[in-house]
Amino acid sequence: METTTPAYSITIQVSLQNIPGTLGRFTSALGKAGGNIAAIPGFQSYGPTVVREIDVMARSSSHAKDIVIAVSNVEGVEVLDWWDRTFRLHEGGKIEIKPLCSVGDAHELAMAYTPGVARVCTAIAKNDPLKHNYTIVKNFVAIVSDGTAVLGLGNLGPAAAMPVMEGKALLFKEFGKVDAFPICLNTSTADELVEAVVRIAPTFGGINLEDIAAPEAFEIEERLIEMLDIPVFHDDQHGTAIVTLAALENALKVVEKNITDIKVVVVGMGAAGIATSKILLDAGVGEIVGVDKEGALHEGRGNLNKAKEWIAENTNPNNQRGSMPEVLADADVFVGLSSAGILSADHIRTMAQDPIVFAMANPEPEIRPEEAKGVAAVMATGRSDFPNQINNVLAFPGVFRGALDVGATRITENMKMSAAKAIANVVSGEDLDKGCIVPSVFDLRVAECVAKAVAEAAVADGVTRKLIPMSSYGY
Amino acid sequence: METTTPAYSITIQVSLQNIPGTLGRFTSALGKAGGNIAAIPGFQSYGPTVVREIDVMARSSSHAKDIVIAVSNVEGVEVLDWWDRTFRLHEGGKIEIKPLCSVGDAHELAMAYTPGVARVCTAIAKNDPLKHNYTIVKNFVAIVSDGTAVLGLGNLGPAAAMPVMEGKALLFKEFGKVDAFPICLNTSTADELVEAVVRIAPTFGGINLEDIAAPEAFEIEERLIEMLDIPVFHDDQHGTAIVTLAALENALKVVEKNITDIKVVVVGMGAAGIATSKILLDAGVGEIVGVDKEGALHEGRGNLNKAKEWIAENTNPNNQRGSMPEVLADADVFVGLSSAGILSADHIRTMAQDPIVFAMANPEPEIRPEEAKGVAAVMATGRSDFPNQINNVLAFPGVFRGALDVGATRITENMKMSAAKAIANVVSGEDLDKGCIVPSVFDLRVAECVAKAVAEAAVADGVTRKLIPMSSYGY
Repeated sequence: METTTPAYSITIQVSLQNIPGTLGRFTSALGKAGGNIAAIPGFQSYGPTVVREIDVMARSSSHAKDIVIAVSNVEGVEVLDWWDRTFRLHEGGKIEIKPLCSVGDAHELAMAYTPGVARVCTAIAKNDPLKHNYTIVKNFVAIVSDGTAVLGLGNLGPAAAMPVMEGKALLFKEFGKVDAFPICLNTSTADELVEAVVRIAPTFGGINLEDIAAPEAFEIEERLIEMLDIPVFHDDQHGTAIVTLAALENALKVVEKNITDIKVVVVGMGAAGIATSKILLDAGVGEIVGVDKEGALHEGRGNLNKAKEWIAENTNPNNQRGSMPEVLADADVFVGLSSAGILSADHIRTMAQDPIVFAMANPEPEIRPEEAKGVAAVMATGRSDFPNQINNVLAFPGVFRGALDVGATRITENMKMSAAKAIANVVSGEDLDKGCIVPSVFDLRVAECVAKAVAEAAVADGVTRKLIPMSSYGY
Repeated sequence: METTTPAYSITIQVSLQNIPGTLGRFTSALGKAGGNIAAIPGFQSYGPTVVREIDVMARSSSHAKDIVIAVSNVEGVEVLDWWDRTFRLHEGGKIEIKPLCSVGDAHELAMAYTPGVARVCTAIAKNDPLKHNYTIVKNFVAIVSDGTAVLGLGNLGPAAAMPVMEGKALLFKEFGKVDAFPICLNTSTADELVEAVVRIAPTFGGINLEDIAAPEAFEIEERLIEMLDIPVFHDDQHGTAIVTLAALENALKVVEKNITDIKVVVVGMGAAGIATSKILLDAGVGEIVGVDKEGALHEGRGNLNKAKEWIAENTNPNNQRGSMPEVLADADVFVGLSSAGILSADHIRTMAQDPIVFAMANPEPEIRPEEAKGVAAVMATGRSDFPNQINNVLAFPGVFRGALDVGATRITENMKMSAAKAIANVVSGEDLDKGCIVPSVFDLRVAECVAKAVAEAAVADGVTRKLIPMSSYGY
């Protein structure tokens, strides 16, 4: 049975008789219905009834409804109202614009707007790089999606992708102090998407591509990197690849294996699977087998897109063929970037000793941690409600923070590898454990360490633009 | 001689000997050099010297430098540092992204991001209008420019247009509580611009076109209105037209003339001039003569773009020909939307009794108020540092606030006329005076009144979308 989750949590507003035992009956009924109390705010009351708003986690929408019905029937309890916390939180969107300067009097207006602003416009028109000093370009990243591969849900279109992109903007700001803005595009070909991004590029200091279906995503990223002089980063590819490598490095320390000796089966050959296979190869993994819905990628399989063909040619040294369960036998690591429930405990039992399982399908993993318990030596997912969350948020805020800080014009392979190492190094010594191979996504040190590593790598690679010192302009 | 302005203000950081008389010598030197002190912050000090940061307004960049040199030579005064306040204010840009919800723990992250966000995405994919409930589309407007007509400065390109669009975003938020985001486009034809806006449209609840050169701007707006189901508003046209009409209505009350009896000469047949001529015609102005660089627009002048041809055919009932000074004779109102300094006091003296002069060229007006003093009965400009500022900021925040509040799918003529009336009505009774024909741009009542009028007009015109009530979704 699935566990309850905050994703399906509700708030129940109840009036309780102020008689000892009422709360007990209420919470018992909740528990019996399978609800999990997330929070009961404190209160004082001396009247005949008390009104409380109680957050309850459920397993699903219908389960939430069942819980409400169950507690409605408790003696001394009246349900006044209830609502879905996730939808409530999304009302009106998740981000807003905040002024960095005031326009509350004539002097301020004359500087921030006309006539003063004309001086700044003229300065930039004469000397384009000044836009990195005097406009939001300095710190703004576009989170670009066409909604063709929203989470693991497929092609939902641009409007339905907005909540994810807004969520991403929250994370950029919270962890990287990067201002990021969602741009969901109504485009239907790679050409159109590339064209749209090139056209809006003057507004931004970086482009984060997101939830764009493979294989188009590969071509789109390559072309944009070529055409623009600001960092372009397809997070589904490289964010995932960076954090997976970081997690693998630490998981191998836990099970005491060498990266060069291991066999990794990467299941799911979308954007994330391809990029993860590539970074693992760069990091020295001995044997990698990529698997798509048709089975293992191997030389001569035919009918592969360009990206998969590259994987077939450059991995799978033993030229293994067959289905996922077939090639998983004796593997040390399962890396899942595919779809819910495709992996079973029995599959894991066929793997080599101390199997490492990264089940990162979104929103439902390839196997739920409950099922893998006691079978996998190290288990990780992409979810925030289980331990070992392999989440891109460990990478992208720091990657862009570092890139923007030094005015990077692109993201190099060295910058990505440095980011992975920085993430892995945050967890060390006795903190490192099978239940803790990656830092918490709430660990604010991570983005700082990643930013520093990425900035240093950018400088070493010579891909930084010459920034004009602030305040050197004007006179 | 030009007056000093905050647009050219500097901050001088000085160390003053703590001996009576030093500040006096310093301020005297400042005054002698023509500098205008904007602010001296308070302080206490008992040491041998005191350090102060003093804001000083100058006439130009070189004047500012002269002032610094002048005060450097004063006995007991040491200039430690100085900087341009306008450029300093622009450092790093003028807006940032602010989260509307927290992602500080696992529960919050599971609702605002994965896995919870997937529920909201799925809901929108199934029911598109829900994007107006659960995403930023509800309250976000794109401020779109290609930088081809930045203020009065011409084609500076998209990057140099950014400071204006960011300033506009400040005003949208401050006065209309509208979240607006600059989109500066690297496009070179009307087709490309239209295409780019249609592609980014899923991200926004409205499009504010800005600083796009005429005549392309007319076609761009028309096509976008046709193609999109969200309000599209070219502010340079309609914002200016609305506020000019509001100002004119009140100016006519001051000089006691009827709108049907007057002759208005509109100089400058760009986006603003054309739209202003049209709204004045709709409002019942008896005689309008449009003037471009070649002189008056009249039937049969030939070689006119589509918009100017429309003006030639629908205004100038006496078919007047000739230059601006020629057609200005006996006119009641001069409306300038052209370029700096083209109007003289002598020109105004040829106008009818109690001439009304709106000199709205940006950043320098057609005539400076000092020169028109005692000659024009009512004088207004577009600038924040003179009285009677005819500024679009009186219109656009309220127009979009009203449109977004009722889910308007377009901005009708009725909505614009209602906005103008609402602005004019804010100034009434004894407040109304030749020095006060429009409300202050800092009057927070304006946007509220405009929003209410615009929303009512939208409802009356039947151009509102059916909004799904908040919180009705989920179960």
